Amino acid sequence: MKSSTKTSAAKCSLPAALDVMGERWSFLILRGAFVGFSHFEQFQAELGIARNILANRLSKMVTHGLMNRVGCSEDRRKVIYSLTPKGEALLPVLIALRQWGERWENCGPSNPVLVDARDRRPIREICVLGVDGRVLAPCELKWIDSSEVNQS
Amino acid sequence: MKSSTKTSAAKCSLPAALDVMGERWSFLILRGAFVGFSHFEQFQAELGIARNILANRLSKMVTHGLMNRVGCSEDRRKVIYSLTPKGEALLPVLIALRQWGERWENCGPSNPVLVDARDRRPIREICVLGVDGRVLAPCELKWIDSSEVNQS
Repeated sequence: MKSSTKTSAAKCSLPAALDVMGERWSFLILRGAFVGFSHFEQFQAELGIARNILANRLSKMVTHGLMNRVGCSEDRRKVIYSLTPKGEALLPVLIALRQWGERWENCGPSNPVLVDARDRRPIREICVLGVDGRVLAPCELKWIDSSEVNQS
Repeated sequence: MKSSTKTSAAKCSLPAALDVMGERWSFLILRGAFVGFSHFEQFQAELGIARNILANRLSKMVTHGLMNRVGCSEDRRKVIYSLTPKGEALLPVLIALRQWGERWENCGPSNPVLVDARDRRPIREICVLGVDGRVLAPCELKWIDSSEVNQS
């Protein structure tokens, strides 16, 4: 991958994204929410995370707009956590990281498997694609200044 | 997104992946490597990271096989860090997280821009795709046990 810019990134959204997600537990809580966890106790039992850390991380995710926190209609003492659209939009990040672990950390196939609900076939590997749909390897990519981008 | 499995993930590669990448600096060092940094001093100057933390993280990334560490041929006292294929394979994760930050953290467009080297057009948004190439929204996805997957 070539770069025509000397500096890393005068303006990059990655640090802001990492303010929310640059932490191990945040990803694991997110994974729990994606497989359907909604109660504090579910997250706690499944992740084996200390209660104060879980409370802190859930609160942070609510503050950052990744999760909603509402009272359960049947039992107002219970609280339900659910992903917002902003939280759901992290799915490609989560899946790409999981696929990378499967491929490179010798974990073998993960279970459960994320499938297309229509035909129960596994999703594709997450790749960097060009506008024309080609899978782009690092050597086919280039970092350029936004003024040099081909907008056609 | 529906789940037919009660537990989060009896076998998930995400924790292993997070052992390597579940930390803010690791992502920022990776970003530096992708835009072409190769010397300790470059990473240090651009990221503003404490030297001992940078040394620790680079060492961890070498240990985990994400980066190679070799002596510079012109000056053997200098060390060059470069991404291995395993490290390069994290690009979709990094780009998906950056795009999420652009879209949801009100950062606006990032600069520099990652483009297809062939035509300088920006890469596509990273999405979860079905085998047929459809972009799948969370409501079109399902977590199922691997024994229930449609392999056809």
